[in-house]
Amino acid sequence: MTATLVTGIAELVTHDEAYDGPLGIVRDAAIVATDGQVSWVGPASDAPDADRRVDVEGRCVVPGFVDSHSHLVFAGDRSAEFAARMTGEPYDGGGIAVSVEATRAASDDELRALLRTRVAEMRAQGTTTVEIKSGYGLDVAHEERALRIAREFTDETTFLGAHVVPPEARGDRSAYVDLVVGDMLEACKPYARWVDVFCEPHSPHAFTEDEARRVLTAGRDGGLELRVHGNQLGHGPGVALAVELGAASVDHCTYLSDDDVEALASSETVATLLPGVEFSTRSPYPSGRRLIDAGATVALATDCNPGTCYSSSIVLMIALAVREMGMTPEEALTAVTLGSARSLRRDDIGHLRVGARADLTVLDAPSYLHIPYRPGVPLARALDL
Amino acid sequence: MTATLVTGIAELVTHDEAYDGPLGIVRDAAIVATDGQVSWVGPASDAPDADRRVDVEGRCVVPGFVDSHSHLVFAGDRSAEFAARMTGEPYDGGGIAVSVEATRAASDDELRALLRTRVAEMRAQGTTTVEIKSGYGLDVAHEERALRIAREFTDETTFLGAHVVPPEARGDRSAYVDLVVGDMLEACKPYARWVDVFCEPHSPHAFTEDEARRVLTAGRDGGLELRVHGNQLGHGPGVALAVELGAASVDHCTYLSDDDVEALASSETVATLLPGVEFSTRSPYPSGRRLIDAGATVALATDCNPGTCYSSSIVLMIALAVREMGMTPEEALTAVTLGSARSLRRDDIGHLRVGARADLTVLDAPSYLHIPYRPGVPLARALDL
Ligand SMILES: [Zn+2]
Ligand SMILES: [Zn+2]
Repeated sequence: MTATLVTGIAELVTHDEAYDGPLGIVRDAAIVATDGQVSWVGPASDAPDADRRVDVEGRCVVPGFVDSHSHLVFAGDRSAEFAARMTGEPYDGGGIAVSVEATRAASDDELRALLRTRVAEMRAQGTTTVEIKSGYGLDVAHEERALRIAREFTDETTFLGAHVVPPEARGDRSAYVDLVVGDMLEACKPYARWVDVFCEPHSPHAFTEDEARRVLTAGRDGGLELRVHGNQLGHGPGVALAVELGAASVDHCTYLSDDDVEALASSETVATLLPGVEFSTRSPYPSGRRLIDAGATVALATDCNPGTCYSSSIVLMIALAVREMGMTPEEALTAVTLGSARSLRRDDIGHLRVGARADLTVLDAPSYLHIPYRPGVPLARALDL
Repeated sequence: MTATLVTGIAELVTHDEAYDGPLGIVRDAAIVATDGQVSWVGPASDAPDADRRVDVEGRCVVPGFVDSHSHLVFAGDRSAEFAARMTGEPYDGGGIAVSVEATRAASDDELRALLRTRVAEMRAQGTTTVEIKSGYGLDVAHEERALRIAREFTDETTFLGAHVVPPEARGDRSAYVDLVVGDMLEACKPYARWVDVFCEPHSPHAFTEDEARRVLTAGRDGGLELRVHGNQLGHGPGVALAVELGAASVDHCTYLSDDDVEALASSETVATLLPGVEFSTRSPYPSGRRLIDAGATVALATDCNPGTCYSSSIVLMIALAVREMGMTPEEALTAVTLGSARSLRRDDIGHLRVGARADLTVLDAPSYLHIPYRPGVPLARALDL
């Protein structure tokens, strides 16, 4: 047993209701990590002895960010597509095929190196848990490979064979769905915790409600838990389907009807907002305020992917949620910690109560308020203990 | 003479019309810096010998960013004011008094340490030239001190005694303007290159057209060059005054009439846009497109300050200009290099032609397109040669 005492914490966000306010803040705090778990939290003046000491010199410490939605397993470069979109070309999901081609062409070692770089980039920006989806393989071997490699980096792996219908299958969509729910699911499920589907009637490349239902129920029957990409490009059936099937999360939620909001509020399904996508596609932002006021649980994530948001920055998502989605700094921080942990049905991360995983993110600032107050500044990094 | 050869540059942005496109791009490039100046640029295959070599391993190199508008000399913390504004309180410039009180109370060494940290933070994000204003002293001794300390860090120092009317002078505004154009200017001008004024009839704390004219003409008579804060909170006289007096730059330009745009387009006065301010005050963004299409020169800067935009991130300003102001990635990059150099009337920075200052910023990316493509990711850093 090795105990590490972290001192010099000007402001510690615990999410423990024993402490101040909704964030459970302790000022002039200390925290002890023992074998990877939080074993003690409190005022620095009461701190116990420990084997090692780390002094963060007046900084703020928050629970390590949980990025509950990413697509990190890809090769190729789509910056030119981004630049073209910024001069007016619309997004309909068609560019995904470009990443599919490059990803299939990459070797295992190339993909592994890309993934290692991206996960490290996230950690350097304060993210300590990341969910990673497949979805640029879109055949049995390449989807299985994506998940096998992703599993080397996280337990939160998601089978997204139903990302888009690949170019070679466009003549026979139902045969592709058969493949996804058949051989592809069978090959992928050993490496996946979750199944996900891009349910979006507004994109010719994505899946209808019926197709999405087939994918999700087959995944569930195969032992996977459910996530949904829904309501990104317009109003649609994604949210209702996610709630009906008890998905842990429905992600995007850019276009929500009153019925959708009510369904989310009266369910355990988390609404995961991805403001980087609205930023990078010049789409209107959904209102986090509306969801929170209705009683829904809101998470924020990056959706880090080569097409619609190649950002790995959780601090930017907080700043955007505050600027654009009507969320307070407190609510936005909660959405990338407790909210996104709940979207992954995890209670060991997203907070710093005793017993939590000792995932600490330190800010080059005295308060978490500086995250939205200092947009663009790389204030956060995961603390190596 | 020490010559350093920088190799491994996947994409080099020179702004030299001898090379590709409006950015003057060289691919697979090299560049030689000799005693702080660019002495050779071209394809890596033609590179000359040098005393030292630095390999940037396939990254993009751009001219060091020029941040032509900042207020870095301040003490105190205003994150709570920011959080309050995000729940609906409007901005009218009144909070500046909070920074004035804290700045006056700080010792020289405290201010110097704060400034050192902030300039280093900017450099770590790719900014190699920064303009720094006074304006949180607002009496003779404290304005002089701010500029004297700022001058330790940059040649681009700006006397902004006319930032706001300080609380103690509100009973007699004209006496305060007398002080600014009299003893304060006299004390400050040895340490300042520029004079600036917050000309804003929409704020009771800022200065009218007549007051601004007095400040600017007195500064010019004292040997300083002119900059103006104008048209931030509504339509007003700032732009017209700046153009009339031949100011190098008028900054903010959030509300512009057609006459303002035309005046800028037919003058040498640069329109400096500060999208971080619109971001952090939830104000509408001005259109960079409109200015560029009319033929005006556009610069982008952070306005890094504790009230309306505590961001030091030029890459965020590029991303916002592309997302929100109708500018292309190419135009936005140009605005933080050539455009902002022109707003400082400098021809030795903002480009990488032979003879330029060897200020190189390296991106963790193969192309400058990745700056807006990867919002929030700290891709840029100044290269230490
Ligand atoms: Zn996604
Ligand atoms: Zn300013």
